[in-house]
Amino acid sequence: MEFFTLLSVEEARDRWLAAVERRMAAERVAASEAAGRITASPVLSPEELPPFARSSVDGYAVRSADTFGASEGLPAYLTVTAEIPMGQAPTLPLNPGEAQKIATGGALPEGADAVIMVEHTEQSAPDEIAALRPVSPGENVMHRGEDCRAGAELIPAGRLIRAQEAALLSHAGILQVDVVRRPRVAIISTGDELVPADQAPGPGQIRESNGQALSALVLRDGGEPAFLGLAPDDEERILALLRQGMAYDLILISGGSSVGARDLTARLIGRLGEPGVLVHGVKLKPGKPTILAVAGGVPVAGLPGHPVSAQVVYSLFVAPLLRQMQGLPPEPEFRPTVLARLTKNVASTAGRTDVVRVRLFRRDGEVWAEPVHGKSGLISTLVKADGLIVIPSAREGLLAGDTVEVEVLA
Amino acid sequence: MEFFTLLSVEEARDRWLAAVERRMAAERVAASEAAGRITASPVLSPEELPPFARSSVDGYAVRSADTFGASEGLPAYLTVTAEIPMGQAPTLPLNPGEAQKIATGGALPEGADAVIMVEHTEQSAPDEIAALRPVSPGENVMHRGEDCRAGAELIPAGRLIRAQEAALLSHAGILQVDVVRRPRVAIISTGDELVPADQAPGPGQIRESNGQALSALVLRDGGEPAFLGLAPDDEERILALLRQGMAYDLILISGGSSVGARDLTARLIGRLGEPGVLVHGVKLKPGKPTILAVAGGVPVAGLPGHPVSAQVVYSLFVAPLLRQMQGLPPEPEFRPTVLARLTKNVASTAGRTDVVRVRLFRRDGEVWAEPVHGKSGLISTLVKADGLIVIPSAREGLLAGDTVEVEVLA
Repeated sequence: MEFFTLLSVEEARDRWLAAVERRMAAERVAASEAAGRITASPVLSPEELPPFARSSVDGYAVRSADTFGASEGLPAYLTVTAEIPMGQAPTLPLNPGEAQKIATGGALPEGADAVIMVEHTEQSAPDEIAALRPVSPGENVMHRGEDCRAGAELIPAGRLIRAQEAALLSHAGILQVDVVRRPRVAIISTGDELVPADQAPGPGQIRESNGQALSALVLRDGGEPAFLGLAPDDEERILALLRQGMAYDLILISGGSSVGARDLTARLIGRLGEPGVLVHGVKLKPGKPTILAVAGGVPVAGLPGHPVSAQVVYSLFVAPLLRQMQGLPPEPEFRPTVLARLTKNVASTAGRTDVVRVRLFRRDGEVWAEPVHGKSGLISTLVKADGLIVIPSAREGLLAGDTVEVEVLA
Repeated sequence: MEFFTLLSVEEARDRWLAAVERRMAAERVAASEAAGRITASPVLSPEELPPFARSSVDGYAVRSADTFGASEGLPAYLTVTAEIPMGQAPTLPLNPGEAQKIATGGALPEGADAVIMVEHTEQSAPDEIAALRPVSPGENVMHRGEDCRAGAELIPAGRLIRAQEAALLSHAGILQVDVVRRPRVAIISTGDELVPADQAPGPGQIRESNGQALSALVLRDGGEPAFLGLAPDDEERILALLRQGMAYDLILISGGSSVGARDLTARLIGRLGEPGVLVHGVKLKPGKPTILAVAGGVPVAGLPGHPVSAQVVYSLFVAPLLRQMQGLPPEPEFRPTVLARLTKNVASTAGRTDVVRVRLFRRDGEVWAEPVHGKSGLISTLVKADGLIVIPSAREGLLAGDTVEVEVLA
């Protein structure tokens, strides 16, 4: 596996994402449980929202024409004929020269086309107000259908249901909604040196940790992780776990830190189904020995065993795939970042994407990013890190003082 | 309630947060369920991590001194005495002039202090390699205890358990961890015009929607929402729900769009317990009629009924309180944002904090933020918005072309 045969991060990602056809089917859930899910199809409004013209202020419903030209010096005098009770329909229509008292959220009476705020009126007689300024047609009114027309799209497909989408579903009386099913992700760890977290490692052994880390990432990204277990670098045992993984929507297999073990993993993935291994090795540090495959319709990612490398490869390849499978664009269109200045030079080889862990801190009113050094087998370096910076392959490193975009690790 | 008696956003928030003493107690959970939770106390490592010196590359374990001065022209020749099997202790010590073959993750034999990468060696005889360059002491070795020393702090208190913290717990064999209990948040909606989402509104009525929205926000921010129900603007019915809320860690009561209803809410909150209402009205748009209180140890927030206002007030006051109650700093130290240029001037009154909804888009390689206009009673304006910009009270608006930090609505 020579350097010149490796793919760039972009080539590798594009090749894999283009080959994965799997998209999550829809499932119907209660709207009250839908926050954090993604709409599977456009949600249409069954009715006009709001269902009637409502006041957006405390004041008086009026015919705007009656207030034209009104001023403090020359108010428009209006007869108050009613007070509209909240939650009820107005009983009287509004005739020229009249006003009806209305609270925020109240229904406008027939004939009214605007609301004048109480602050812009004076009580001039027991049943009369003076309008001290004009209101224009529609002023301080939420029109019938202004939030959404009956039959129009309330929420588009492929949209994360945030608080405001949840509110709109409630407002429209939609009690069930079609969301994309959570992708079920099989997670496998391999390595002769690994024991489960609940076992005491013998000499030369360490406890498995990528299973927990990958489960947390999958959960964060909308998937349902299932840890299938760990296997030594043994053909039959790894193959048995991989075959079990074929019942899932995506397989993540990590481990095989040594070249021999990595080649074994790639060979076994290749035996799962067509088209097989699409990418074996990426111009990326850390994360060079990445394997990306599709086998019989199931995407498979072979991640490095080193925890830091595994997490970097997850971010660059697996997270975009999970988004795509859930009907989102692979990368968020606008990714929030923290701008920070580098404390020191960071070397990088041109032609290779480098991902650098950084710790953030403030000094003299500026945010600084300090590269966290340490081998990619050391998990504590990721715990100390607040975020990652990606040095694209075209760059030959960054200089101390450069402003960089830091992707915060959440 | 005159403008000059209102508090600034900062004064209001500081006063409320300082008065809330409640902090969540610890609860012990399985480490496998701990992702997304916050540590209640420092987690110490029960042992040295890693438990033995490990190779971080494929190569040969050596005594570094044996390689000093080695070059391609004048290699250092070393006798290969063993291949260290993964997951087992080395059986032979390493004597001067010797090398032992080792894979990534393998345990270093006694006597070795470095690993030379296989790429920097040549097989010079069946049991001999030529080292083509020197390695320094410790090179390519993860030392015993380098990830964490026995008894040292593995994860500090008040830390979100991300993927990497989960991995470290697993690595250290920690199966249970003390995290802060999720704050239980009572949510109440009030308003004569409201009906539950599953009822057809009659004339002048609309369906309740803040309950759903606030539940989604609380869930996102680590709390456990409980919607207690909705009440008309009736003293006894509101008070009954508020009293029920006293069993929770925080009460959010929204509604009371009209001045009269808002004053009723404030009066009833005041009757719950000491010290009572601390803030009634904030120099904020939207969100002026905010009520912040503490009653008998329970924090209470009275949010405006308008959905957009309610969400803005939640972000500025409730989200920081929930963080504080969970042992985090009220504001994230480094908040990721999207930098964008404003498409148009945005007016703002000096002395008042303005929160503006914006839609993001790209044009000519730049990110632009387009203010989303619309009344704060219209939920759809929040659905169309990608984020919010906050115009601090000292500013008198922003100009088209200005670069602003957009907080993405998640």
